[in-house]
Amino acid sequence: MSRPAGRTILASTIAKPYQEEVINAVNRLSFRPTLVGLLANDDPAAKMYANWTGKTCESLGFTYKLIEVNKNELETSLIKANKDDSVNGIMVYFPVFGDKQDQYLQQLISPEKDVEGLNFLYYHNLYHNVRFLDPPHNQQKSLIPCTSLAMVKILEYLGVYNNILHYGNRLYGKKVLIVNRSEIVGRPLAAMLANDGATVYSVDINNIQQFTRGDNLSEHRHIVKDLDPEEYALEKIAPQCDVIITGVPSDSYKFPVDLVSYGTIVINFSSSKNFDDDVKERAGLYVPSIGKVTIAILLRNLLRLIDNKQIREKVVEQ
Amino acid sequence: MSRPAGRTILASTIAKPYQEEVINAVNRLSFRPTLVGLLANDDPAAKMYANWTGKTCESLGFTYKLIEVNKNELETSLIKANKDDSVNGIMVYFPVFGDKQDQYLQQLISPEKDVEGLNFLYYHNLYHNVRFLDPPHNQQKSLIPCTSLAMVKILEYLGVYNNILHYGNRLYGKKVLIVNRSEIVGRPLAAMLANDGATVYSVDINNIQQFTRGDNLSEHRHIVKDLDPEEYALEKIAPQCDVIITGVPSDSYKFPVDLVSYGTIVINFSSSKNFDDDVKERAGLYVPSIGKVTIAILLRNLLRLIDNKQIREKVVEQ
Repeated sequence: MSRPAGRTILASTIAKPYQEEVINAVNRLSFRPTLVGLLANDDPAAKMYANWTGKTCESLGFTYKLIEVNKNELETSLIKANKDDSVNGIMVYFPVFGDKQDQYLQQLISPEKDVEGLNFLYYHNLYHNVRFLDPPHNQQKSLIPCTSLAMVKILEYLGVYNNILHYGNRLYGKKVLIVNRSEIVGRPLAAMLANDGATVYSVDINNIQQFTRGDNLSEHRHIVKDLDPEEYALEKIAPQCDVIITGVPSDSYKFPVDLVSYGTIVINFSSSKNFDDDVKERAGLYVPSIGKVTIAILLRNLLRLIDNKQIREKVVEQ
Repeated sequence: MSRPAGRTILASTIAKPYQEEVINAVNRLSFRPTLVGLLANDDPAAKMYANWTGKTCESLGFTYKLIEVNKNELETSLIKANKDDSVNGIMVYFPVFGDKQDQYLQQLISPEKDVEGLNFLYYHNLYHNVRFLDPPHNQQKSLIPCTSLAMVKILEYLGVYNNILHYGNRLYGKKVLIVNRSEIVGRPLAAMLANDGATVYSVDINNIQQFTRGDNLSEHRHIVKDLDPEEYALEKIAPQCDVIITGVPSDSYKFPVDLVSYGTIVINFSSSKNFDDDVKERAGLYVPSIGKVTIAILLRNLLRLIDNKQIREKVVEQ
């Protein structure tokens, strides 16, 4: 294999300016912000991930408190952390029980401490392309789920967002394939990129959907359309896309590299490796994992929560 | 018509930094550079264009000498200007006689004074992706035909060149349609953009050709391929392109706007208007004319010639 024409870009490279931004912002605060991680999960991988979050927090100037609890005490611990004024942000390491009960617990985190941006309030704003919490003042920015926001920052770094276009339309003309339509990442990400002007093809095990704001971005927010599975088969769509994003949480899944056109931008956000290494011979830019960007953005979200709180307190004072 | 999602970008906006660059470079010289324009053409449009060149030259700090001669004296005047040490750059307003004799005259301009970069030496370097005149020292940059170079600068401004990719590969993954395959602009432009990594579809009245450096840019320079006219009909290719560039010198020619996909980057370098205004409803970015960029680049080429001369003189001294 000769030297590839494209480049592999590591998450650490992209994360760097955001880590610096976070360090500088913490330095300007009069206190050291605290993130609480709630672990009620026996999976050693979850424990490892929690420890890694902790190390990153401490290295960037935050206090990290890992609270390990029994599943049945998780709700009580969460409510306690919600009420504790010394806690600025809360995250829970899911899965704990499984789908529905976990979602109840997730939504129990106060929106004011939801660093991951997963509260339905934030989802609602994202889906409806609402960018502030306090219209018409528009001082408090709505949070964005951190993996989706990390992806936006990655796409900006990679030159996919075009700054010459109007703000809000900077993905106009770009075709993006997203393999994953989870409620945590895939669906909000598809909506967000479509809201920014892209034509998004959202793939899950059942079907392919298109997310767009209409041909000439005439809509304020995206519209979702189920696509005909023959006319819009993956084999036809994928080679036409400017960007291919995967997030399939399975070590056995590999995206078929022969569907990646030469020069395509390729990003994997799964902790599994969704591409064989020969994708490097085809990708224009290849980002094999994004974790380091996501954690920097998580902490940036925590600072956003603190900002929003300070703005609210100022309004109350006046 | 509602406010378009895309933007129209004027050449004056893109030209501005290059005008400033040129003014600053002239200020650093110990003399005022002189451009000679040779006009042997009765067309009032050519005279107008010559006067406009003159005004721009003077406004950016150059001396412009318009020499009006009879057709049959053009060769003599040209040779005289070649020999005149006070003349730094020469351009002739073509057409004068017609194809072959004009080409002879064009090539008679000394490469050292060829501001338009149209000498076969420069073409050869462009076609072979050779960027310097003096390998292995690589101090004297080869000139690039000024319209093609202007187009590169425009594509850089519009965010089509991706700086994250390796230098020389920054159009990797981009599909560009060029309607015009003249020896002055269309063919060198297609070659140049393909050399920078693009897949270029070059259209003229006879056929469509593809210019690429191979799927994964494995070649050092572009390869040209005639395309099957049915499989690669304009109707099929155009909607897939990221960029559509036209240069058809006819007021009656209009590129079919329905072949422009929403969000496409559209540039017209013809002095005729190759797009109806409704292209604005589809284009992501639309540049309706490029003349002001071209003239700034012409003067930048003149400064390049002066630079190269000074480097050569320094080498001789040593």
